[in-house]
Order: sequence, then C-alpha cells, then structure tokens
Amino acid sequence: MTTTLAELGERALVERLTRRLPAAGGTVVVGPGDDCAIVRLASDAVEDLVLTSDPVIEGVHVGPGDLPGAVGHKAVARALSDLAAMGAEPLWGLIDLVAPAATAMERVEAIYEGAQATAARYGLAIVGGDCARGTLLELHVFAVGRVPRGTAVLRSTAQAGEEIYVTGALGGSLAGRHLNFSPRLKEGVWLRAQGWATAMMDLSDGLGADLPRLCVASRVGASLRTEALPIAPEVFAHPDARDPLAHALHDGEDFELLFSVAAERRAAFEAAWRATFGLACSRIGSFTAAAAGVLIFSPDGTSAPLAGGYEHFKR
Amino acid sequence: MTTTLAELGERALVERLTRRLPAAGGTVVVGPGDDCAIVRLASDAVEDLVLTSDPVIEGVHVGPGDLPGAVGHKAVARALSDLAAMGAEPLWGLIDLVAPAATAMERVEAIYEGAQATAARYGLAIVGGDCARGTLLELHVFAVGRVPRGTAVLRSTAQAGEEIYVTGALGGSLAGRHLNFSPRLKEGVWLRAQGWATAMMDLSDGLGADLPRLCVASRVGASLRTEALPIAPEVFAHPDARDPLAHALHDGEDFELLFSVAAERRAAFEAAWRATFGLACSRIGSFTAAAAGVLIFSPDGTSAPLAGGYEHFKR
Repeated sequence: MTTTLAELGERALVERLTRRLPAAGGTVVVGPGDDCAIVRLASDAVEDLVLTSDPVIEGVHVGPGDLPGAVGHKAVARALSDLAAMGAEPLWGLIDLVAPAATAMERVEAIYEGAQATAARYGLAIVGGDCARGTLLELHVFAVGRVPRGTAVLRSTAQAGEEIYVTGALGGSLAGRHLNFSPRLKEGVWLRAQGWATAMMDLSDGLGADLPRLCVASRVGASLRTEALPIAPEVFAHPDARDPLAHALHDGEDFELLFSVAAERRAAFEAAWRATFGLACSRIGSFTAAAAGVLIFSPDGTSAPLAGGYEHFKR
Repeated sequence: MTTTLAELGERALVERLTRRLPAAGGTVVVGPGDDCAIVRLASDAVEDLVLTSDPVIEGVHVGPGDLPGAVGHKAVARALSDLAAMGAEPLWGLIDLVAPAATAMERVEAIYEGAQATAARYGLAIVGGDCARGTLLELHVFAVGRVPRGTAVLRSTAQAGEEIYVTGALGGSLAGRHLNFSPRLKEGVWLRAQGWATAMMDLSDGLGADLPRLCVASRVGASLRTEALPIAPEVFAHPDARDPLAHALHDGEDFELLFSVAAERRAAFEAAWRATFGLACSRIGSFTAAAAGVLIFSPDGTSAPLAGGYEHFKR
C-alpha cells in the first residue's frame, strides 16, 4: 500500500521529511519548523541570519488570469512575510523561475518586474536565481534576512497568560488581498527590537490553522473571543453562504502577524503601537495552559475547538 | 507579436531578466552572472557568503524512471557544484519540493533521503524549505557557502596567456553520470585556498557552451586542443552516430570544474595537483586575446569556432 501526498497532506509531509534533518547544532540555531531557519556564521557573530523559501505556482497560489505584476509581488512578499515573522530585516533573495516554453516573454518579464519592484521597496536585493522549463509557471523565492544575535522571535516561546494579537484584518484573501498584501516588515522589526513580541508567526493558512500550530510549538492552549477578531471589509463586500467569521478564520493567505505580548505590558504595548502605526492591531484572546486546548468563545459564553485552514495536497 | 521563451532560449531569458537587477553595491559584492552571487554582511566582515539556487525538474533534468535517491542526489549536488566553482565551503541549504498530489509518499521520502545524504556528506546543513502541489515533481535547492573575504574565484578574471584546465572527464552524462556525479568541492576549495585558480566555473551545459561564457565574462579568447580533451569512458561504452569529441563538448551536465592557472605556474600546479588528488586534471588549451575568438584546434592544425551545448526552452 502506498500513501499519496493527497492522502497525507502538506503539513504531515513537511513533518515527515524534516524530522530526519539534523536539529540545531553547529552553525544552525533553529532548524526546520519555524517561519525561517536561524543560522549563525561564527560563534562570536553579532548577528544571526534567517533563511526561508516560498513557492508560488500558477493554478495553486495564483491564477493564469492574475496580473503579472501582482504575481511577482506575491512571490516576493510571501518570503518577506516569513522574514517579518522573525522580526528580521531583508538582505538578499534569489528567484527560480519555471515556465512552459510557450510562455510569452512579455508576461515573464512583467512578473519579474513585479517581483523586483517589491523586493526593492522592502530592501531585499535580488542577487540571482535560475530559469528552467516546466509545465506550470512558478516562482521559487529564497530570502535571507538578519536580526541581532539571539533576538529572532520564534513561534515556540509563547506562555500561558500572555495576550494574543493580530495585525490588520483577516479573511477575504480570494477577493484580491492575496495578491496585494503588504508584508509586515517594519511592524515585525519593531515588535522584535522593542521587545514587545514574546512569540510570533505570520498567518499563511488562516488563523484557524496557524494559531493551533503556534500553540503546539509553544506547548500552550489559547482562548479566542469571536467578537474581537478583525474581519476584513472584503469579506462583507463579497457576501456568500459562509459566515464572515469562518472567512476570517479559514480563508488563509492573510499574511498578517500573529504574536503574543506579556499581559502586564498590555496597556503600554497598545499605546506604543497606536503611537507608531496607523495599521490596526487587535487583541483577540490569550494563551492558556496546554490542557485547555485551543478554543474560540462566542459572546454568549459558548465555546468550540478551533481547527481548519488551507492545506496543500489535501483534497 | 509576442516572443515565447522557446524562441528566446534560457540564456537570453536570464540576461533579460537580470539586467534590470541592481549591480554590485552595498552588501552585494557580485550580483547575477557568475555561478553564485557573492554578498558581505558587514563592511568589516572577514568572510563573504555565496548564494545559489538550482532547479531539478522531472522530464527536464531527471526522468520519472530515475531512482529517487539519485534524483535527490542530483538536486543537491548541482547546487554544491556551484559552490565548488567559487571555491566555497557549504554552509546551509533549503529545499522547495513540488509534486503532483497523486505522488507516492514513499518516492518523495526516498528523494528527500537522497538529497539529505548528499548534503550531509558534503557538510551542507538542510535547515528548511517548503512543499507545494504542482504537475511535475521538482526540487529547488537553495545553498549558502562561505569563502574568506574577497577570495571567491570568479569566471570573469581569466587573462590571455593563462592555461585552461578541466577536472575529471567530459561527456556521457546521459549514460548515467548526470545522476551520480561528485561535486568537486574539495578540489574547488583547494584551487581557491592555494591560489592556483585565477578564474573558475563549473560545467553544466557542456564545455562547448560554458567555455565561451567564461571567455565573454573575462574578455578573452581561447584556443583548445582536441587531443587534450578528457573524454569520459561512458562515451566509448555507448557509441552512437556522434563523434566522441562532440559528446565531450556538448553533452552537458559534466559538473566538472573549468579553471585557469598562470602559465609560469603550470609545472608547479600540475605537480601539486598530482600530489593531492587522484582525480584527473587536464590542461586543454590556453586563453588568448579576445579578438582571436574561441577556437578548437585539431592535431593537423586546422581550427574551428567552438559553440553549442544544451539550452533550456530552446527546441
């Protein structure tokens, strides 16, 4: 009996593949499992590097009708969002491009221009890459960022009692946000540099899938308040059979930051955020003991376990 | 009128895409165009980092019947060969995996094991990556290496009068060598550290295509001697309508090192090589003035321009 990737699902695949990789040690500070790997060139280095890679594939992450500039933007911005989630500053990127031989050069150039424009806007120097023939149009973006030694914000360091925050608003990605989102780089760097965030990740598969992952990594539970969740206006502008809350939890590709702040610093943090950013930042719940699980509470006091989100391969 | 990638070809595509990238400056020592980009974290850094990415796609670089361990090996070894070409030591790698949903988990795991085994053998720590659904099986390997500051060996620094060398033997890649080659890492590091190589690249598209590229980058010409070319035994073991010399020049995927040594150091270099390595190293010609072009001389004194090799997209 063979098992297909469709039966296994992306997360289980990543876990099966990476569990045989060497753990931290030598120049590797944090191996697979966080938004980026963290590496250190020398034992006395003053900075750590963070490394990430992200694929964007036509038919999966983007459609053949999507504007080429937006496709290029998305490919680079996804990798930048991973850097943001560590509180890292962008340094260098490489782009592998795959395309069918019949692809129009003009479309490829426009995609590349979109990628390059977004990279330049956020300070990521595209220093190379490769091109190859395939059956789908694809971009694979590899990015390197930096943080002062030992300061990268992990997803495994949240503690019970801490407040849970999310930047921006959630849901409605397919109404266009997945193509034009802004990676939260300056916010991520600020949350790390000012010492506010005790744990952080970016939301790529939806809060409903990503928050449980952060909880597993940090060995905590969580309790969310439905009325506190910031729902994107796109969700209300394109009403359908699904509850707006379900969109906010499960649409995926929000690329907002999910992070924790010590409860006693709540007021100071919220004041500092408002003084610094125009972007919304919502306190959506708090971390609890692991045994409590990951629950979402309605205003009437009823609760339900949180689960779901987008997963590759799975049908 | 649109132009397709098939009409343009891979090299012209890479040139068109990368010519709008920023050149060297800031933390970028050498941008696109060499085997790896060279970057420097700080102005007083004692080491430079080199970055490369390489795709391996089923139906293009490997076949569906190829052993999975060999597919994984090839994906990582191609990136390691790029590091070798700079004289760099491997540090960290990321692997993006793309696969159809119906792919057997067992095949994916075996490919990943092959990749991991090769990475471990050569000291490349695989620290992460991503997985996504596509229509072809693909691996995209991103690798980081290091060299002492300012010592990476470029392809743009050969000079007229220098001797041209190549490691190992050429041709016959499709008889199996493209799946089981050894990246010439210790040879590349030695050639850089001992100061022998004045310019270097790895042979991925065949000497007939790659040597002219090195000549363009270095603004030199070259004169090769047909009788000096080391032809792989696989070429003679699988005779066909093509001349063995054509195989050696144009088969591609040799992943041997092509490099130059100062003419006056020829004897000392050859003695040092033989004292250090069991691997063959052949002096195949010498660099000339650019105006002379890139010529290949037969023993009877006749010459012909060198051209050709494998190119993606082009039919």
